[in-house]
This record gives sequence, C-alpha cells and structure tokens, in this order.
Amino acid sequence: MTATVASNDRGSAIASEGKQPRTARGQRTLRAILDAAAAEFGEKGFHDGSISGITRRAGVALGSFYTYFDSKDAVFRALVRDMSDQVREHVAPSIRAAPEQIAAERAGLQTFIEFVRDHKEIYRIIDEAEFVDPDSFRTHYTTTADRIAARLKAAAGRGEIRADVDEVHAWAIMGMNVFLGLRYGVWEADRTPQAVADTVAAMLARGLAAD
Amino acid sequence: MTATVASNDRGSAIASEGKQPRTARGQRTLRAILDAAAAEFGEKGFHDGSISGITRRAGVALGSFYTYFDSKDAVFRALVRDMSDQVREHVAPSIRAAPEQIAAERAGLQTFIEFVRDHKEIYRIIDEAEFVDPDSFRTHYTTTADRIAARLKAAAGRGEIRADVDEVHAWAIMGMNVFLGLRYGVWEADRTPQAVADTVAAMLARGLAAD
Repeated sequence: MTATVASNDRGSAIASEGKQPRTARGQRTLRAILDAAAAEFGEKGFHDGSISGITRRAGVALGSFYTYFDSKDAVFRALVRDMSDQVREHVAPSIRAAPEQIAAERAGLQTFIEFVRDHKEIYRIIDEAEFVDPDSFRTHYTTTADRIAARLKAAAGRGEIRADVDEVHAWAIMGMNVFLGLRYGVWEADRTPQAVADTVAAMLARGLAAD
Repeated sequence: MTATVASNDRGSAIASEGKQPRTARGQRTLRAILDAAAAEFGEKGFHDGSISGITRRAGVALGSFYTYFDSKDAVFRALVRDMSDQVREHVAPSIRAAPEQIAAERAGLQTFIEFVRDHKEIYRIIDEAEFVDPDSFRTHYTTTADRIAARLKAAAGRGEIRADVDEVHAWAIMGMNVFLGLRYGVWEADRTPQAVADTVAAMLARGLAAD
C-alpha cells in the first residue's frame, strides 16, 4: 500500500459522506484503515471480514472507524475505489513518460503486473465487488476503459496509431491486461513483467499501426 | 441452456463421483438439475441459492438431486465445469469451420458474445467460483488459455500467423474475449457481436501476421 492519501486526487471523497478527514493526522488514520481493510477483505473476503478485524489490523479504536465510515459496506465501497485509484496512480507516470502510445501501453502493462505482484489482494477485492457492490465493480471497469479509449484517441489524433481506434480496442486492451495480471502477477511469476509487456506491445505495434 | 448432455464429451463425469446417470432418462434429469442450478445461482448467487430452489426449478424431487450430487458445493462445482464445456462446445464449430486462424478467432469471439447474450448468468457463476471454488475458477481459465495456445501454435505451424505465438498471446486473447463478452454481451448490446469481432480480428490480423 502507498503510505499517503494526499497524492490521491479523489482522496478527499474516500470516507463516507460528511466524514472526510480535516487534518493530516486524520488522513493518516483513514489511510491506515483502508490498508487494513485491503488486508482483511483480501484475506477473508467480504462476508468473513469484519470491522473489528480492520481496526485491530490498523491499530485504531472502533470509534476511529466510525469517524470515517458508516458501515462495513461503506469501507468496502471506499476500498474498491481506493484500489482503482492506486492502480491508476501507479501506472500513470510510466504511461505519461513513454515517447509514443505503443511504448505507453507497454509501460502501462509492465507496471500494472509489477503492482499486482505487490498487491495480490486487488483481484480478490475488485472481483468480489461484482457481488458485494456491483455499481463499484462496473464503475471501476467502465472508467478504466474510458481512460484507455481517451488515450488511444489522443494518440490517433497525433498520428501514432490507426485513426479508427475506439471503445472496442480499449475494452480489448483492458481485458488483456487484467488476465495477464492475473496469470503473471497473481498466480505465477514464471515470466518477467517486462517480457509479457514486450510480447503484447509487439502485437499492438502492428495491430494498431497507422495505415 | 442446451437441451442435451449427450453431446458433452465430459458429460459422463459431471455428476458427483459414483453418481453418473446410467440411462437417457437419468441424463435428462441431470441436465434439468444443472440448468436449474444455473438459474438459481445466476439469480441468487451461491450463498443465497439452495438445493430446494434448484429442485423446485427443475421440477424434481429432493431425492433426485442426491441421486446425482452430494451437496450444494458439488452441484456448483459441476455447474462451473458444465458452463465451461457449454461455451467451448458452442464456439468450437465456428472456429473449426473458419478457413484460417484470424477468421477462426473472429468467429470464436462473435459466437462467444452471442452465447453470452443468451446465458448472461455465466459471468456471475464463473466469477463467483473465484470465491466458492477457486480450483474450478483456475481450471476454467487455464484450460481455456491452453486450448487457445494450442490452436495458435497449430496455425503458426501452418504459416498462417507469426511463428513465435505462445501462452502470452493466448492469455491476451482470452482476456479480450472475456471483457468484450462482459461489455457487449452482458452489460449492453449497443454493438453487434459481428462488429466487435470484426474490430478485434482486424487488430489481430496485423498484430499476429507472419513476417
């Protein structure tokens, strides 16, 4: 887990409504609760996970939990958005630093697999959202695909890739990345993230080439 | 749901151990129970779904359930494998009939999205297996990826696609198909399965082209 919520541009909206922390200390407590929730739900799942398990892992009093969240459902919902934000923030710099779009997609996949290896619980949490909080599940994937589609279209506008890229390409790329992250990030580390990303980038370089 | 288990080459192993049906009538009852289980778990999820809900939907006595399955866990496990088999059997003929491998992948994706539109419960059931029966979840995706890798390598051997195709391409294609099926099969039908498959095939045709 990252140690700060301050760099998270939606951090101010992560607690339950009307319960946003107003101080740096409050933000640290909120961060500790979210990290503990990731460990608790990642290990036990939503149904067997508990608020007392979260506060014990975070080393905070039960009252502190309710300072920021209304319920177990609320902290789970916040956690899904927090993990979604964390992935985006982790991969975004490498994507922005890439010289052109195929290199950007390559870097995005590599850093995503690296992130997943350090945060294996992310799959279990986001996948369980399909059942616990379907709106969060759908929002996570829809906003991710929208973000990919936007960067592909911008690259097409710069002439780096084919002009007709659209939403279907974005969902295809997201699907590849999710399953390659599961296979080579969570399940087995028998290829390097770089090797996996190189293979996919070689396919995309020709598959998405401008005419 | 298909009306028969006879065409399922693993149908004989679908019931609990030692409980395989020996007659055509028994196979029909087993098929009715599996179809009812798909409806029950697809609608209610594993935890809220019940054996009595399954037998009510199937119109069979509780004793008939135990003729074929040992428990709710057992019928869920059988259902995941049955749905995995059904997808494979539904898409396989169109893949086999295609003149070359890119056309095969195109046909496979199109028929998969069509299948999903008629069996929207498949996502909820297979995704819930990640929590209810992780081995079934992993087996479903690993065997699917192995099958894709095998057909890609065979096509590479025939010179239809690049010689270096491997497991990474297989997981990438599977991931694309799973997410495109979710987006355009389960969630919204705002593109035709054919249009989605055409877009992906155009990308793969160049991305996987032989040098």
